[in-house]
Amino acid sequence: MADVFVDDERLAKFCTEVFVKLGVSRKDAQITSDVLVASDLRGIPSHGVARLMRYVKGIRDGIILPKVKPKIVKETSTTATVDARHGLGQPAGYFGMNLAIKKAKRSGVGFVAVRNSNHYGIAGYYSMMALKSNLIGISMTNSAPLAVPTFGRDMMIGTNPLSLVAPAGKERPYVLDMATTVVPRGKLEVLNRLGKPLPLGWAVDEQGVPTTDAARVLDNMAKASGGGVLPLGGTGEELRGYKGYGLSLLVDILSGVLSGADYGPWVKTTKKDGTKGFINVGHFFGAIRIENFIPLRRFKATMDEMMQGLKNSKKAKGATRIFIHGEKEFEKYDEYKRKGVPLQEKVVADLKNLSHELSVPYNIEK
Amino acid sequence: MADVFVDDERLAKFCTEVFVKLGVSRKDAQITSDVLVASDLRGIPSHGVARLMRYVKGIRDGIILPKVKPKIVKETSTTATVDARHGLGQPAGYFGMNLAIKKAKRSGVGFVAVRNSNHYGIAGYYSMMALKSNLIGISMTNSAPLAVPTFGRDMMIGTNPLSLVAPAGKERPYVLDMATTVVPRGKLEVLNRLGKPLPLGWAVDEQGVPTTDAARVLDNMAKASGGGVLPLGGTGEELRGYKGYGLSLLVDILSGVLSGADYGPWVKTTKKDGTKGFINVGHFFGAIRIENFIPLRRFKATMDEMMQGLKNSKKAKGATRIFIHGEKEFEKYDEYKRKGVPLQEKVVADLKNLSHELSVPYNIEK
Repeated sequence: MADVFVDDERLAKFCTEVFVKLGVSRKDAQITSDVLVASDLRGIPSHGVARLMRYVKGIRDGIILPKVKPKIVKETSTTATVDARHGLGQPAGYFGMNLAIKKAKRSGVGFVAVRNSNHYGIAGYYSMMALKSNLIGISMTNSAPLAVPTFGRDMMIGTNPLSLVAPAGKERPYVLDMATTVVPRGKLEVLNRLGKPLPLGWAVDEQGVPTTDAARVLDNMAKASGGGVLPLGGTGEELRGYKGYGLSLLVDILSGVLSGADYGPWVKTTKKDGTKGFINVGHFFGAIRIENFIPLRRFKATMDEMMQGLKNSKKAKGATRIFIHGEKEFEKYDEYKRKGVPLQEKVVADLKNLSHELSVPYNIEK
Repeated sequence: MADVFVDDERLAKFCTEVFVKLGVSRKDAQITSDVLVASDLRGIPSHGVARLMRYVKGIRDGIILPKVKPKIVKETSTTATVDARHGLGQPAGYFGMNLAIKKAKRSGVGFVAVRNSNHYGIAGYYSMMALKSNLIGISMTNSAPLAVPTFGRDMMIGTNPLSLVAPAGKERPYVLDMATTVVPRGKLEVLNRLGKPLPLGWAVDEQGVPTTDAARVLDNMAKASGGGVLPLGGTGEELRGYKGYGLSLLVDILSGVLSGADYGPWVKTTKKDGTKGFINVGHFFGAIRIENFIPLRRFKATMDEMMQGLKNSKKAKGATRIFIHGEKEFEKYDEYKRKGVPLQEKVVADLKNLSHELSVPYNIEK
């Protein structure tokens, strides 16, 4: 069960060759691989190369079209709607975010909604693209229905992550990148494998009642027989789960409704009329030019001051450190760049199988 | 302890006359009163006329300047920075949001940051101004430091509310308007008056440890001797309190840092150098034109469909209804328009005192 440490650059090259073999253009294959490996490097393996097999399966099953290019269907100097035409979510996200950045540089603000897309990996990859241009970056996406609304019992909304990033000066940028549920499904799977109970407030059973039984929740989720993960704030009203529920709708309105994608319970292959079809995921990207509001130097100096103030403030009893959002991930990135990216043995086995099947040399280990 | 029911229009007129007597222009007095009464009508008395005395005191103490007008200090077709010049927060918010709306109508998107402002009431009042023009509306503000960052023990951030609204067709609009903390201080005060324990996850004591002792937390907060309310998600990492902490920073970055206002622990009268000064609250407003992305009719039809799907989905055991954000407040509005706005006896006593002091006739009761 020991992790295998692999070189991030060779891992990205390996993934790129896999996608190219499946008919993806080299450029789109590179973008997609970069998003996956960036997630592993940032210490988020749930959205990293561990997902490669799902994308491969999606392409092979005809759910993800490898060769299509995103198309702008509506555009102004500040806004655009993009049709991803059922291609990979990563090149569509890259295209959409770059468009938002270009508009923000010229017009101060740029917002781009994308429809007919697929799972795009970590939301923070795209928002962070704005940092190179000293912009505030925004990225969000809807996703397969796994979460239960407050007072409900059926999976009606996705884990719908949202990300906002802002540059600092001497400090590292602020990078918020969060699911609007308490946890994604993957965290339930981890505790289930360890045979540990779920903390109360993570998930509900088939009757919509809070439970600590991970196996039961996962089984229900797989069968869509009721229950699922809870919005940030947990069950009911006591700790304000309706706020997380509201944030997940915010993400769905901007990513799903505004773009013309599917929303909530319909982000899946089974359509309203019972037929099978493409998954129609929606994304929403934004960029805001700081200097339209305040000198960049002053913004960055204040960000530094705010971050240092928080980090140097008094710690809770038993705590040793106060974090800024993104800090842990930047530290993981530095560590994994140096010593290699840890991959689970199961993931390595999948990569070796792909290596054989597609004749892509497996030479990624450190 | 029975509530007194008052007529909302006469209540607004009463507040308007109070502000006029204190030197506020009639127009600004009307705006401020409308924001306060709207909060009561929507069932949020903590931000309603119960706060009138604080604004009156602010003006009398010279902390809020009654006669100044907000000034645009930087402007493009999509963005603006506004200096509220230490006036009332409500006219500054009204001015800022209208500017964002005007820009969105012309340029698709409008964002306005406001500095040197004061408490502006409910965030949702301003975002909802966008609904008349069928725009998506955004409003947020930083606020006095009352919340403790994850793993911290000192009040370093505000309850920093954020609001986003979107129109629907036959359904009422989606109106998210939430503090990024689990609860505001007022909710602790309510339980304290009732002698009830706080739910664990609302607040921490002077050592940063979760506590159910409302009196202790409120006493600590008043003295700033450690402890305070928790970000959405509660303490530590188990239920992801760092997400609420991240959202409160998001609000502070856009409202405080981007506008050039104060941020976090400095949104108060005591400044970094120990001197006393104006409170420098920051707001952030946005408006997005839906038709730049998708036909308005289609957006509204999908919103209806999404909302109906959620409301009609299966309820959790023991639950009878699934809500959409804003629904409860719209229903309160209808109810209180009809039968009058309930005011606590203490609030009524304050209004009667003001009536005597300022010779403003008290004729508001139903």
